[in-house]
Amino acid sequence: MKKIKSVAIVVKPHAPNLREVLSELIGFLEGRHIDCLLEEAAAEKLERGDGFRREDLPSRADLIVVLGGDGTLLSIARAAARAGAPVMGVNMGHLGFLTEVPVGEMTLALEAVLSGNESIVSPRWLLEAKLGDKVFHCLNDVVINKSALARMVQMRIWVDGLEVAVPRADGLIVATPTGSTAYSLSAGGPILQPHIPAFIIAPICPHTLTFRPMVVSSSSGIRVQLLTGEEEVYLTLDGQRGVTMEKGDEVEVRRSGLELQLISSPRRNYFRLLKEKLGWGE
Amino acid sequence: MKKIKSVAIVVKPHAPNLREVLSELIGFLEGRHIDCLLEEAAAEKLERGDGFRREDLPSRADLIVVLGGDGTLLSIARAAARAGAPVMGVNMGHLGFLTEVPVGEMTLALEAVLSGNESIVSPRWLLEAKLGDKVFHCLNDVVINKSALARMVQMRIWVDGLEVAVPRADGLIVATPTGSTAYSLSAGGPILQPHIPAFIIAPICPHTLTFRPMVVSSSSGIRVQLLTGEEEVYLTLDGQRGVTMEKGDEVEVRRSGLELQLISSPRRNYFRLLKEKLGWGE
Amino acid sequence: MKKIKSVAIVVKPHAPNLREVLSELIGFLEGRHIDCLLEEAAAEKLERGDGFRREDLPSRADLIVVLGGDGTLLSIARAAARAGAPVMGVNMGHLGFLTEVPVGEMTLALEAVLSGNESIVSPRWLLEAKLGDKVFHCLNDVVINKSALARMVQMRIWVDGLEVAVPRADGLIVATPTGSTAYSLSAGGPILQPHIPAFIIAPICPHTLTFRPMVVSSSSGIRVQLLTGEEEVYLTLDGQRGVTMEKGDEVEVRRSGLELQLISSPRRNYFRLLKEKLGWGE
Amino acid sequence: MKKIKSVAIVVKPHAPNLREVLSELIGFLEGRHIDCLLEEAAAEKLERGDGFRREDLPSRADLIVVLGGDGTLLSIARAAARAGAPVMGVNMGHLGFLTEVPVGEMTLALEAVLSGNESIVSPRWLLEAKLGDKVFHCLNDVVINKSALARMVQMRIWVDGLEVAVPRADGLIVATPTGSTAYSLSAGGPILQPHIPAFIIAPICPHTLTFRPMVVSSSSGIRVQLLTGEEEVYLTLDGQRGVTMEKGDEVEVRRSGLELQLISSPRRNYFRLLKEKLGWGE
Repeated sequence: MKKIKSVAIVVKPHAPNLREVLSELIGFLEGRHIDCLLEEAAAEKLERGDGFRREDLPSRADLIVVLGGDGTLLSIARAAARAGAPVMGVNMGHLGFLTEVPVGEMTLALEAVLSGNESIVSPRWLLEAKLGDKVFHCLNDVVINKSALARMVQMRIWVDGLEVAVPRADGLIVATPTGSTAYSLSAGGPILQPHIPAFIIAPICPHTLTFRPMVVSSSSGIRVQLLTGEEEVYLTLDGQRGVTMEKGDEVEVRRSGLELQLISSPRRNYFRLLKEKLGWGE
Repeated sequence: MKKIKSVAIVVKPHAPNLREVLSELIGFLEGRHIDCLLEEAAAEKLERGDGFRREDLPSRADLIVVLGGDGTLLSIARAAARAGAPVMGVNMGHLGFLTEVPVGEMTLALEAVLSGNESIVSPRWLLEAKLGDKVFHCLNDVVINKSALARMVQMRIWVDGLEVAVPRADGLIVATPTGSTAYSLSAGGPILQPHIPAFIIAPICPHTLTFRPMVVSSSSGIRVQLLTGEEEVYLTLDGQRGVTMEKGDEVEVRRSGLELQLISSPRRNYFRLLKEKLGWGE
Repeated sequence: MKKIKSVAIVVKPHAPNLREVLSELIGFLEGRHIDCLLEEAAAEKLERGDGFRREDLPSRADLIVVLGGDGTLLSIARAAARAGAPVMGVNMGHLGFLTEVPVGEMTLALEAVLSGNESIVSPRWLLEAKLGDKVFHCLNDVVINKSALARMVQMRIWVDGLEVAVPRADGLIVATPTGSTAYSLSAGGPILQPHIPAFIIAPICPHTLTFRPMVVSSSSGIRVQLLTGEEEVYLTLDGQRGVTMEKGDEVEVRRSGLELQLISSPRRNYFRLLKEKLGWGE
Repeated sequence: MKKIKSVAIVVKPHAPNLREVLSELIGFLEGRHIDCLLEEAAAEKLERGDGFRREDLPSRADLIVVLGGDGTLLSIARAAARAGAPVMGVNMGHLGFLTEVPVGEMTLALEAVLSGNESIVSPRWLLEAKLGDKVFHCLNDVVINKSALARMVQMRIWVDGLEVAVPRADGLIVATPTGSTAYSLSAGGPILQPHIPAFIIAPICPHTLTFRPMVVSSSSGIRVQLLTGEEEVYLTLDGQRGVTMEKGDEVEVRRSGLELQLISSPRRNYFRLLKEKLGWGE
């Protein structure tokens, strides 16, 4: 890990106690002569002048600290992966799968990062989805989903050019291992350890009883064609952005070259996180 | 069953072979001196003057024949139940759970109906759903569903005034036994024989691993309150009509006094229908 | 409810604090001039002479109190239903679905019973299973199960003489609503409110993807024939007794005329019990 | 692939048409001057002297052809992997996941093998399971299973020394990707493409609603300790051999160094096999 000289701080604007946590964080970092770069909402909160806009994550940051929830972290995941800066998610409320550091352990985790402790960096590969000439990079998942008022959609799915299935369903999820604890889990998908080189393909409310979640190699190319047309159908990326799909449209998914350096909690391993978040196996 | 003197015919306008099937049906009925009342699209197809509009199902019809799919039948289910006239669904393509008579067995089934054979009438109770001052009657289900681009919704569910659960999910289905083979099945719900006096309460993609489909008495009152507010949420009725829900809105569901007299196929029982439609247990 | 003059007390012999709880219970009852009849293990614990054997539940008991777990209560459920005496289950450790009264609420519940409070009696119908000339009555379920070392079994299932399915699986569960929170739930079955007049038919680890849990009327007759023969297969009754099945053997299941009068906790309703036991919907 | 000079032929003794298929196979091979080594049951069938015993698979065979079902192939999988000889499974009845070549395509597949076509060889890694001083190698899965008459078992599971869960269930499956279409699928596990470097950990009928199938890296070490003791519990290997487990016993599972060279059908890919066997996604 690179020596940390400046840290970008991204915040969920209305998180409770944001001002206190920000002050503690900045105090800790500036006390160690580390430069703090604040997102607009954070700068405003502390009346420290102009901050950066979230879409212009400062390239000179050696570390990004997110004060918020998994949604906040997802919103900067692609930019952070592109910049190569590690990201530490401090959850301001409930423990998150991406924001696994509680406020009370923030300085402990920062000390581990600053001391160059590599063991708490968990690399997470992203997927790349293409729809026409648009290209998206996602940390969790890409989802094809009908609108609330529509009937089901029908799709044709290929893996490496081989037809896999032609299911009718509410939709379809293609998830990374990181996304296995997010929407895919609700749809009945399995949990995958973060570093497994494989995608989950999980149908959402399939009308077909014989189509269940599958796990295919992350070196595969997955292609999904929308066969139905009358209904409103959306492609959503990490549950955040959505674009409309038309009949005949094809989405191509493969492993992206991008990788996010996610800081994990020094106090909990992956399985303990499953227990704390989901009551796993108890 | 009342003696059949006039039959209302409802059609799916673009069904393949509609003209031929209509001609065969009308020939059969008029040959037995039974009056045929045609829906607009049917009248137009045969150039037999003005037909009735689907929302004005003629009250003097002693039988309603639907040429179409389950969706077509659902669209007149409430009106037919209110009128007390039995409904026979003739599927114009795939076998349906409501339209279980294939074209090739249409006259056989009609003969059974005209001869007063009670055994092929399958009474199906409807549910009643109230949202504010709106009241709906549904044959299959009432569904609370988030829009494609929204995160999850959170709801509070009571049965007979007792709190059951406060799940976070994509949505929630309350289904009749007739609806158990429709959307509820896709969401993981059990199949109920049509005459069981019970509702299914099934979450859609629950984020909570500990909430699974439940079956509660049809004499119960079910109440669901929407706890989340930022997202677009819809209440859909039999997958056909949708109304917007706001944070705090409550839906109350109970058994309706209405009952649909559905004509079942003389050639297949309920379990054979499951096999033909779903490959059940094979 | 009949006036309570004598109470039979059944115990799980090695339950922790059994002596103390027994003393409290007997003190409470004898203080109200109610006769206490003790099972052997209880009589021995308190050195109060000979007790009755569990299989000879005294017919003059007006109430049966079980100090133990659901297994202890299941072991006397048939005899109690036959005798018509209500049963109160006091759990000596974990809350049970049948033994829902904790030790700390024992006297509160007893007071409600003695005062003739009918509202805490939850009638539970039993099922009757026939295998050859043997007849069994079960409160929870009847299970066809292969042995650990066997492959799968194949069965043919009829409901009211109509063939339902011919699945290959590890086994099959036919459960009452009371049994819906027991083994059936582990196999993926739905939860049914106790008074729903319906059976659950749930496959255990089906090899057939198209066979899922079904709910059929309690007025139905269910018949299951074992089609495979080389393997060891057992019929187990309420998870307690087992008999061997041979190829071609048929099990017939219907609603029994017997009903257990189960005393429920005055402090918790059915849904709260689900929450406390299963973390339902949280 | 090595030049094929001799082929060992393993058979399911009572397979229908065994004599005819054997004659065709031997005629084909001997016509190409390839030596045929027959298992006892095959030699007897054709009255060709003594055959080898299945447990003494001849080491000089350059290819093993199995005429039978998946069970027959599983019975020699370990020995074949150890010997390094590729295995071609010809199913004598139903298509199998391991015996995917139908009799009618046998010579076509053999020609592909003899011509050195590498593309039809599908390498399948085995798992290694240790219980005390016994070591087993399995192609599909290792299963901890209670007996039919027992209650549930409780286990503690670790992955790489980290505690994962302490579930109560009927049992637990640890499967390879090759085993993902076998028992694990019945227990609700996902399907994994054969070459994914990951294990499935799937509970059998879990009493714990919060424990679902997981996928962990094949470079992990999985350890399972049996916590319950009163019941009969078995460890079964590829559904074929079983050994008794006692309270406190630990099973350790990791990837074996062994790999089976499985000949796949030149006519069907993995997804087509899923469709033909399971009706996948239709």
